[in-house]
Amino acid sequence: MENLATSYLRVTSCLEIERAGSGHPGIALGGAPIIYSIYKQAFVNPDYPHFINRDRIVFSAGHASALIYACMHLFKFKVTNEELKNFRRIGSLTTGHPEVNGLPGIDASTGPLGQGIAMAVGMAIAEEFLRNKFQKGNLKPIDHYTYCFCGDGCLMEGVAQEAITIAGNLRLNKLILLYDKNDITIEGSTSISNKEVVKEKFIACNWNVIEVNNGNDVSLIDEAIIRAKQSDKPTIIIVKTQIGYGSEFAGKSSIHGKPLNSEQIKNLRQNLNYFVPDWEIPSDVEKFVSKLVLNKKNEYDRQQKDLVEYKKKYKEEYEQLFNTKYDFNFKELQDDSISEEIDMRHIGHEILNNIYDKLQIIGGSADLAPSTQMFFDKCGYFDETNRQNRNIAYGVREHAMGAISNGLTLHGGLRAFCSTFFSFSNYLTPAIRMSALMKNPVLYIFTHDSVATGEDGPTHQPIEQLATMRAMPDINVFRPVGRNEMLAGFEYFFKNKLPMALLIPRQHLKGIENSYSGALRGGYKIVDRENSIATIVSTGSDVVLVSKASDLLEKKGIIVDIVSVPCVELFEKQDKEYKNSVIGKTRKVICVESSNDSIWYKYASSVEDVIKMETFGISGRGEEVMDYFGFTPEKLAEKIEKLIK
Amino acid sequence: MENLATSYLRVTSCLEIERAGSGHPGIALGGAPIIYSIYKQAFVNPDYPHFINRDRIVFSAGHASALIYACMHLFKFKVTNEELKNFRRIGSLTTGHPEVNGLPGIDASTGPLGQGIAMAVGMAIAEEFLRNKFQKGNLKPIDHYTYCFCGDGCLMEGVAQEAITIAGNLRLNKLILLYDKNDITIEGSTSISNKEVVKEKFIACNWNVIEVNNGNDVSLIDEAIIRAKQSDKPTIIIVKTQIGYGSEFAGKSSIHGKPLNSEQIKNLRQNLNYFVPDWEIPSDVEKFVSKLVLNKKNEYDRQQKDLVEYKKKYKEEYEQLFNTKYDFNFKELQDDSISEEIDMRHIGHEILNNIYDKLQIIGGSADLAPSTQMFFDKCGYFDETNRQNRNIAYGVREHAMGAISNGLTLHGGLRAFCSTFFSFSNYLTPAIRMSALMKNPVLYIFTHDSVATGEDGPTHQPIEQLATMRAMPDINVFRPVGRNEMLAGFEYFFKNKLPMALLIPRQHLKGIENSYSGALRGGYKIVDRENSIATIVSTGSDVVLVSKASDLLEKKGIIVDIVSVPCVELFEKQDKEYKNSVIGKTRKVICVESSNDSIWYKYASSVEDVIKMETFGISGRGEEVMDYFGFTPEKLAEKIEKLIK
Repeated sequence: MENLATSYLRVTSCLEIERAGSGHPGIALGGAPIIYSIYKQAFVNPDYPHFINRDRIVFSAGHASALIYACMHLFKFKVTNEELKNFRRIGSLTTGHPEVNGLPGIDASTGPLGQGIAMAVGMAIAEEFLRNKFQKGNLKPIDHYTYCFCGDGCLMEGVAQEAITIAGNLRLNKLILLYDKNDITIEGSTSISNKEVVKEKFIACNWNVIEVNNGNDVSLIDEAIIRAKQSDKPTIIIVKTQIGYGSEFAGKSSIHGKPLNSEQIKNLRQNLNYFVPDWEIPSDVEKFVSKLVLNKKNEYDRQQKDLVEYKKKYKEEYEQLFNTKYDFNFKELQDDSISEEIDMRHIGHEILNNIYDKLQIIGGSADLAPSTQMFFDKCGYFDETNRQNRNIAYGVREHAMGAISNGLTLHGGLRAFCSTFFSFSNYLTPAIRMSALMKNPVLYIFTHDSVATGEDGPTHQPIEQLATMRAMPDINVFRPVGRNEMLAGFEYFFKNKLPMALLIPRQHLKGIENSYSGALRGGYKIVDRENSIATIVSTGSDVVLVSKASDLLEKKGIIVDIVSVPCVELFEKQDKEYKNSVIGKTRKVICVESSNDSIWYKYASSVEDVIKMETFGISGRGEEVMDYFGFTPEKLAEKIEKLIK
Repeated sequence: MENLATSYLRVTSCLEIERAGSGHPGIALGGAPIIYSIYKQAFVNPDYPHFINRDRIVFSAGHASALIYACMHLFKFKVTNEELKNFRRIGSLTTGHPEVNGLPGIDASTGPLGQGIAMAVGMAIAEEFLRNKFQKGNLKPIDHYTYCFCGDGCLMEGVAQEAITIAGNLRLNKLILLYDKNDITIEGSTSISNKEVVKEKFIACNWNVIEVNNGNDVSLIDEAIIRAKQSDKPTIIIVKTQIGYGSEFAGKSSIHGKPLNSEQIKNLRQNLNYFVPDWEIPSDVEKFVSKLVLNKKNEYDRQQKDLVEYKKKYKEEYEQLFNTKYDFNFKELQDDSISEEIDMRHIGHEILNNIYDKLQIIGGSADLAPSTQMFFDKCGYFDETNRQNRNIAYGVREHAMGAISNGLTLHGGLRAFCSTFFSFSNYLTPAIRMSALMKNPVLYIFTHDSVATGEDGPTHQPIEQLATMRAMPDINVFRPVGRNEMLAGFEYFFKNKLPMALLIPRQHLKGIENSYSGALRGGYKIVDRENSIATIVSTGSDVVLVSKASDLLEKKGIIVDIVSVPCVELFEKQDKEYKNSVIGKTRKVICVESSNDSIWYKYASSVEDVIKMETFGISGRGEEVMDYFGFTPEKLAEKIEKLIK
């Protein structure tokens, strides 16, 4: 029976790949028993694949897509044979790699290796937090496992190594990692690139390790999963498989990404002793799986009954878990008074702590919380004994922090933030990209957002990072100049289903009048004066410099307007009329930003009218560094005057 | 004596930091005996700190800078007391974090954690390769150790974990990693963020582990280093230290980045029982270290004598090692014939293999060599038995690949390349940034450089990556359309001391005439016609689409010129006259690139005249994806026609 099922999956995967003319037969043939076993064991009702208490399944090795789709078809998810036949074609649900916004039942988009493991860790943290929070006696609206499927490649990635340590630290015992160990990667045997003893490494990281020496025996994998569920630590099940099993290229790296042709699929059938027609599920398998699916549906019904009871008895908690609207009146925290000096990090800290009680938000920093100030005062760290704390100690692991934040948010019932210095955003850009691709609303708070960071020198001074963030689709970049703009950033983040990068300076700023409602349009005239002859466009801390420069210019009789653009993406969404009223090109427009983003060529009157940073920074005191690069009120005023004349 | 020396280092570090008003006393106080021991044991002649056979020292925990500079002062490097007093000020050699182009004797710029370990691994590979290549009997022009100093934070980083596995795979037994284990990071005890058993993890990765339980006993560290040198594996020396040792904040995370004030320094002196005046080296220590330095100078003289003999006997080898001009006449490989179809990856492969015998170049891929095609045919993998092979099997470890490439190149005597898909460049951007910051000429070859990558879907299709690369200072981005342009890219790379990102499409292209000399000016008129009424600017594979679109437009009587800009940075370096002759704004200029870089607003006639990608890609066949986003000759011709009218 199990052989028949896995043969069906193996052949069907290869048929998909053959039709598509591309895909990855190697992992499909080798990993079939593992993914089949996951779908056997995992609780997911294919009719309601978004049910909040389903077991989560993350395919870190997303290139197993053909196999995943075949298996989801077998287990009655909404993927038809027609979809399987359209594998990897535009408009199909069966995309090249699994996409969370595509086929219902896919819990995370994957493809770039390693990140799936970290996303699964994030989901397991969310489960642990929410289970403990909402459990009432025997009623547990959240109580599930998180499965993750990975290959040799995933485990080589640094992001996976970081996440593995974190999972061990936090004793996430409901996390089950299934490792398809075929000892082959694209370039050949892993003996050329991986001599480490994976088992020992996981033990050193406080994991439970189970080994399955015959990856073709589904019952062994089933048993291993059942044992994993008893563990008080996260479990890795190391399953020895053979890449391309059953094909004439079994055990060879060449099978990784090369479709089998019809002749080779015939040979495969021969080797598997499997002759059921193409695309047909063997009737015995169909019957067997139908029973399994029925059990899952029954379990779903049982849980729904429990939920009805829960709702009746614990209405407030129920609402909190299921009707997470993330409503918070940020406007309420507005303050229009002007301080001589403001500390934007401190303001961010205050806002974050203001929403602590109201919104289901959890997060942490890559060991820079005292510097970024992005932590909750009212609780300690989430750790193996304190499952309700909402500060996460990521350690110096930026990439895993980003990917785990994706998992936390993808899980549902929670929103995640994370923070580090803006210059180090590079370390987690791959995860930020996944947030954007998945339209997964993670809040990335990056402080020390310009060369004004100072003494730590050029490694700590961002230059090109703003360009990276703004060039990335589907993420909003918010660089506020004051409290009200920052509040607007928070507001916009929680009202939209997109990730955000919130940029905050290290240095204190002179307080200037700034507008909540203006910021909610992305850009606005922060200083609008009669008789002005030019518009100076700027963002964040640079607006303060421009404002001071404007005062100097005024003394010379040069009157300029100032436009603050805390969020270019949001400004671009406004209607033409508004945009023209703010940055009309009928007059001189000069753009100023202590960063190297070419976006300003879009708004400035001419190429010369862009004042930006085109070199790396330098080690020195913040204000000296800014002076060195011409970012002082005096030097800016001089430049602007020249440009206007 | 040793106590006196380390007390001097501790107090002097704190004096530097106090004057600067910023810095990291925690690691300076805790790690002083380790760094002191490194400088005792390592062979570096402070008068010739760039001598090719010196021991390399990489401070992965670059925030120990105050201590490093104090120690280099003690060991007679060119860092005066005046420089120590100017710690972290603009223009000083004593920058916030160590910079390879600053103080002579610094072997790698560090600051962002973890990467230093990977750079040290790269240096150790270079040493292994060069030692074996140039050794003649007892004459070994290259034969040295690579020391790396790291803290708890470095070891948490994924890039370090990746590099550690690689070092173990390759059995780099001349690599000695000294781990300043104080069990504290910025957010507090590592017990909150790091419960893994570091020792066991290193053993699982095939390392030799030595533990020093008292980090204040220099002799124990000295001994450990001597034992490490006997190992046939890379060695980690785990040194138990106390952060902020001697100060009133010893053992507390608060001491990490907070200067001691003069009162607290007094207390420190009391605790250390050290009362030598500020900035003065205790005379006994001075005498002792002078002797050590004299030994190093003598060793240097001995090696110089050996080198004279080597030069006499092995002139060719000597020239190869020391006069690496990287001269290769790439022009020679020009081919002006026009093929119906060209495979740019194949051309890259051919060029790489052409220079294999002529240039000292080594490199590898993050497990995608068969796809990127960037490998040498004439040799296998560099591994524990084959020390002369020049393909490096990085495994799926992009970040370490980048940082190791930095180490390989920093070492001297070698240049490094590495390759993966352009979309995954995100994974190694932190290392690319360090290449750029250090002006370290690593060749990054990224294939699959647009959404035309196709079936693998949006995770594998770069969108914002070109913007990131071009916004980064001090790196050249080369996106050639044909063989001649690619050759120009190689030529420019080897003649310049900057890193390069070379971008290559996955898809085959129609061959079009393209110019070697034109590409060496960054941009040029690839099609220049009388009666043309507009200029279409494009890069790489998009130039082919534009060329086809131009043919369609011609049929309608619309004649356009085409400008190919393989390298924006290089084009910008040309004189104004040339630039205006290529992209004169006196006429319509339309820019076309299947990427999301705002740089084109700089060159286009208006905002509307930029045709680019502003969303993520989609899973589908390459040509279908390009069609979906309007990047076909027909659709481009239509858009261009509209824009012109």
